Amino acid sequence: MKLIRFGEPGHEKPGILLDGKRYDTSAITRDYDETFFTEDGIAKLQAALAQKPSLPEVPAAIRWAAPQVRPSKIICIGLNYADHARESNMELPKEPIVFFKSTTALVGPNDDLVIPKNSVKTDWEVELAVIIGKKATYVEEKDAAGYIAGYALHNDYSERAFQLERGGQWVKGKSCDTFAPLGPWIATADEIKDVNNLRLWLTVNGKTMQDGNTSNFIFNVNYVVAYLSQFMTLLPGDIISTGTPAGVGLGQKPNPIYIKAGDVMELGIDGLGTSKQVAKAYQP
Amino acid sequence: MKLIRFGEPGHEKPGILLDGKRYDTSAITRDYDETFFTEDGIAKLQAALAQKPSLPEVPAAIRWAAPQVRPSKIICIGLNYADHARESNMELPKEPIVFFKSTTALVGPNDDLVIPKNSVKTDWEVELAVIIGKKATYVEEKDAAGYIAGYALHNDYSERAFQLERGGQWVKGKSCDTFAPLGPWIATADEIKDVNNLRLWLTVNGKTMQDGNTSNFIFNVNYVVAYLSQFMTLLPGDIISTGTPAGVGLGQKPNPIYIKAGDVMELGIDGLGTSKQVAKAYQP
Repeated sequence: MKLIRFGEPGHEKPGILLDGKRYDTSAITRDYDETFFTEDGIAKLQAALAQKPSLPEVPAAIRWAAPQVRPSKIICIGLNYADHARESNMELPKEPIVFFKSTTALVGPNDDLVIPKNSVKTDWEVELAVIIGKKATYVEEKDAAGYIAGYALHNDYSERAFQLERGGQWVKGKSCDTFAPLGPWIATADEIKDVNNLRLWLTVNGKTMQDGNTSNFIFNVNYVVAYLSQFMTLLPGDIISTGTPAGVGLGQKPNPIYIKAGDVMELGIDGLGTSKQVAKAYQP
Repeated sequence: MKLIRFGEPGHEKPGILLDGKRYDTSAITRDYDETFFTEDGIAKLQAALAQKPSLPEVPAAIRWAAPQVRPSKIICIGLNYADHARESNMELPKEPIVFFKSTTALVGPNDDLVIPKNSVKTDWEVELAVIIGKKATYVEEKDAAGYIAGYALHNDYSERAFQLERGGQWVKGKSCDTFAPLGPWIATADEIKDVNNLRLWLTVNGKTMQDGNTSNFIFNVNYVVAYLSQFMTLLPGDIISTGTPAGVGLGQKPNPIYIKAGDVMELGIDGLGTSKQVAKAYQP
């Protein structure tokens, strides 16, 4: 099943994607929030759909929203592909590098990217996001798959000066508004045969900048879920973004390349669709 | 006004503290969540109280809960007192050091501290917490006070091995369950005459370990609120924990001292009350 949401910010509704068409499921399910995942909403929705209810189709012009309601947290894994660690001139991590992204950064998959005020180094990062389905504390790697609701495409936008040149921790460069376009959909876990073998790519103005595969993860999906649950409780709906392959702006030779107003980022992952963001300058 | 909450986890209700007694306000206000702060809940509650409604007193035996519902984020400032930076053998920051703490760490002010599984370096940090009252983006320092709802006492528990020896960012050592006891109350901003001149202290088993004053902040409260709002949107109810003065376990000479099961932490801040946590070992 492919979960989508649609509508203007603040007025979003849940839906599903079926044979390329979007359908409004708001009459048969609550919105895709923490409670939805907690109360086994995916199985309930599947059961409701098996009754073949008549669902209104969502007109194509309606905005694609982030496919889930704002979660309790967005956790990101840093330097989880060896080629990206090298281009960043950083050592391969011995354990997952963990940082948070403010959940206020979450937007729809095709919403504009707003380049923050005072930003000169806004950068892209195509990533596989994992959506947690069940409260997870001290989970073992062999059991981790049971705690995953699904997967989505994520662009982990990053302001490199804020992240690396302003003192301290990375969260400062990861949390600006619009820095977390998610979707177009959440593919429920049963839809993805091997999550550790998916191609992911990103273009800027039509030129391929990233073209990797999750088979190159340093720490795979189940390992990451189990690892994080040793340090904090994961809640249903929490998003884990699993890191980006080589090809970010920071890593370009001979000089880094950063996003300017008008640039168009397109990205995709096998089975998780594509998204597109147009950069615009911050306007008060 | 002093906002409190009471009751067992999952069944908490809002209240106020008046002349040392707790009163149930659940009949006249919604719970103290993001919407409460967004919809000017403090002013509405003050207006309702001016009508002198009859409010049930909360029996003394009832648990003190965290004085607000889980917010969108807990943001912490690192090394914001010069004496603590020195004891940690770290340089004085040129800009605020910012990290997040998982909101799942939030508990009542007198709940037990659970020493995490595999922890050997659990440590204390008495801190002043700021509660955001209004959505804040690109706020100037001179306007920052208008975005603050109130203040509370916070113990920013930290696992030093998870934080500093496991690779990467600090969030890993800040986010365990029970690592954020908040309260006993939120003092609304009008109650605190000068937030940048409050004594704060912490004892372990009756022995004073921390005894500082917020007048020694490197970055004061308004500066921190304005600064953070340059990097992310602050939402009503968001918690900003402003850093700890010298005297944490990590800084003890000749050797660090860490928390063991049975230890009793007591802490307080002028005008914000006191709290007490008893450490216990993790039990599955």
